[in-house]
Amino acid sequence: MKTLAKKVFESLPYPRVVIVGGGFAGLSLVRRLANKPFKVTLVDKNNFHTFQPLLYQVATASLTPDSIAYPFRKMIGPMDNVIFRMAKVESVDWEAKELVTSVGRLPYDILVLATGSTTNFFGNRDMAAKAMQLKTVGQALDIRSDFLQNFERAVALSDTNQTDEQRKVLHFVIVGGGPTGVEVAGALAEIKNKILTSEYREVDPQQMDITVIDAGPRLLFGMSEESSARAKQYLEKLGVGILLDTQVQGYDGETVRLSNGQEIETETVIWAAGVKGNPIPGLKEEAYLPNGRVLVDEYNTIQGHEYVFALGDMAQMVTEAYPKGHPMMAQPAMQQADHFAKNLLRLSRKKQPLPFSYRDKGSMATIGRHRAVAEIGNLKLGGGLAWYVWMGVHILFLIGFRNRMAVLFNWAVKYFSYSNTIRLIVRPFVRSSS
Amino acid sequence: MKTLAKKVFESLPYPRVVIVGGGFAGLSLVRRLANKPFKVTLVDKNNFHTFQPLLYQVATASLTPDSIAYPFRKMIGPMDNVIFRMAKVESVDWEAKELVTSVGRLPYDILVLATGSTTNFFGNRDMAAKAMQLKTVGQALDIRSDFLQNFERAVALSDTNQTDEQRKVLHFVIVGGGPTGVEVAGALAEIKNKILTSEYREVDPQQMDITVIDAGPRLLFGMSEESSARAKQYLEKLGVGILLDTQVQGYDGETVRLSNGQEIETETVIWAAGVKGNPIPGLKEEAYLPNGRVLVDEYNTIQGHEYVFALGDMAQMVTEAYPKGHPMMAQPAMQQADHFAKNLLRLSRKKQPLPFSYRDKGSMATIGRHRAVAEIGNLKLGGGLAWYVWMGVHILFLIGFRNRMAVLFNWAVKYFSYSNTIRLIVRPFVRSSS
Repeated sequence: MKTLAKKVFESLPYPRVVIVGGGFAGLSLVRRLANKPFKVTLVDKNNFHTFQPLLYQVATASLTPDSIAYPFRKMIGPMDNVIFRMAKVESVDWEAKELVTSVGRLPYDILVLATGSTTNFFGNRDMAAKAMQLKTVGQALDIRSDFLQNFERAVALSDTNQTDEQRKVLHFVIVGGGPTGVEVAGALAEIKNKILTSEYREVDPQQMDITVIDAGPRLLFGMSEESSARAKQYLEKLGVGILLDTQVQGYDGETVRLSNGQEIETETVIWAAGVKGNPIPGLKEEAYLPNGRVLVDEYNTIQGHEYVFALGDMAQMVTEAYPKGHPMMAQPAMQQADHFAKNLLRLSRKKQPLPFSYRDKGSMATIGRHRAVAEIGNLKLGGGLAWYVWMGVHILFLIGFRNRMAVLFNWAVKYFSYSNTIRLIVRPFVRSSS
Repeated sequence: MKTLAKKVFESLPYPRVVIVGGGFAGLSLVRRLANKPFKVTLVDKNNFHTFQPLLYQVATASLTPDSIAYPFRKMIGPMDNVIFRMAKVESVDWEAKELVTSVGRLPYDILVLATGSTTNFFGNRDMAAKAMQLKTVGQALDIRSDFLQNFERAVALSDTNQTDEQRKVLHFVIVGGGPTGVEVAGALAEIKNKILTSEYREVDPQQMDITVIDAGPRLLFGMSEESSARAKQYLEKLGVGILLDTQVQGYDGETVRLSNGQEIETETVIWAAGVKGNPIPGLKEEAYLPNGRVLVDEYNTIQGHEYVFALGDMAQMVTEAYPKGHPMMAQPAMQQADHFAKNLLRLSRKKQPLPFSYRDKGSMATIGRHRAVAEIGNLKLGGGLAWYVWMGVHILFLIGFRNRMAVLFNWAVKYFSYSNTIRLIVRPFVRSSS
């Protein structure tokens, strides 16, 4: 990065910064570069930012999609030096220094790749073909429609006493005991206990099962053993089955085969067992590590690419404290983006850039009403207190006043009604059905 | 209906009432029969009621779908004598008195058809194949995604100076000058004036056009000439082109051909020119009038079907005051349902049923901020006053406290921000994309 100063900043009045991806990293960078001496272009395949930590609440009918998605143009409207292009990246013309996209070529002086992560099936083809994922708004809405449709089918199966078929339709298997897996399981368990009981009177709630499967020895592996134990206890209290040290070996759309020999009849498997770097067309195969991330130095430079940088989930910055790179979460992405922006501004003022260092602000997960685990520094919280902290932090990090209010409104309705109200089955619409 | 009393009410303790369709008619009937001596089954292909008068605001990014859609089960949860089946009707077994659905057979003593209306293309095949409709939540979301995607394409076309192509992408043609057409046109015009100007800086707003086409001599034909003139004036002030006494003769997806010889290059045609009764499988061809509705007497009985009734849009009740049946709107549907419920209750108490008569409570349409027309009795309102009346009436008739609050919230955000904020392009998701 140090060599950039002369080449880019001394030859041009306003270096052109092209940012691919408007997740936590990309959007933080855009905000930091707003009204600064750069010409910024944000490129994303969607026209909105997705607040991924709350996606699971869209999938479980607690939040509306609009409350956690934010249109990019609403943010950059007042930023005179920022433009947005909704486009897919097709390749990079390294010679001409142009990003080739579905809507044309975008010339850059500095290219920033912040394409985030995608679901990692670890080569499990059955799962890649049959399991549901939870990385996009579309996927979350699909999970919502699916589980609601399963409930409706369960009612119809009651009419004909097909109890075995009903158990299969009402068994929800979640692979992966990280925050997403734990949070989805908790939310589904609450739906079983509150909504299935009161609004699907024809169905015996005992017919519904939720099972979390993890290959490791405990849930929430990124947190302390204390928090893992708490999360397990909370989930068990809600009636969730937990299978640890267990791997999924196959799934044909009806039966999950497990490494312990067990089989589970189910029509719904949600895969939350891992993520990998989201590749960008144009980068050479060699650039990628086995986990799909791209190796960067502590200035976020991609090796061998002087003008090209990677931020967030897709960037693996190996340091002494983090030999496997930073965790693939919002915090490192935002901190890297903030730091990278500072470095660009330093360079524009002819100062030397500074290496990045990550400050761990903690992690947390919620498991139903009044129950969560949170770790902040040495502090380990559980129960209701952690739940309120979890809510506060998420509201704080949401983008835009309207979305904060919308989430608060949705949560207030849920809190006082004990009901997940956003239960619409909306399927892809095919024009001209007549 | 009078003969029902003996056959149904004297032989059974609780007559089984099966209601097909949970629109205004079906849902009103369900609410009136709640906790009364009937066993009620509501059947609908969706799991939610759609408040159709506000669908156009979902299509134009002002309201979230959940704010105008209400899950049936949330309503019938506390009603002990009502159950819900999400199902498609396949046929009716008149002999066995059973409704045959995609989830099994539902026996009835009294069958109520309230399937509403569907888009009427009046035989225009081009339009049926290429135009967008606005009768369901899915269609509204599709219009929303489409116009937002057109805006994004318009930005990309600016990069390459393709101004002709850009005009085509930004020309929105609405066929039909009734309330829906007028309301959609007004909302799009506001988006042009506020959002296109501020958030799509690369696009010259003059490139965007909105045209309303109607075959008749004036807009809002169901209202007075005074209101028609007002609506026209409001739309013209907002920059909307209006073509009256004009018919659409063809559309190939790129060019609309009109009866006056004019051609309009456009990629977006929204068809709001008419509705027809929504047919139900199982009813004989002869039962339908040319407009797709079913003739009923003033007790809502379908001719020749002693135990079968039709309510709302799909029922054509010919009276002296309404020789063509009641208007296909929410009010007649709700009033018929309320009256029909009263008649059922009268029969159960061995009283004679009473013939229905419609009380016209007026009609209204809104055309952008602070502008609407409303007619209540002899009172003809316009401007800001009509706009507030319009809002109040719609909030009042929405179902459920949560939805009222959600609509108020969305409206408040829009009012104070001058911005349509719910601008997410969400397309059908295809599983296993990797």
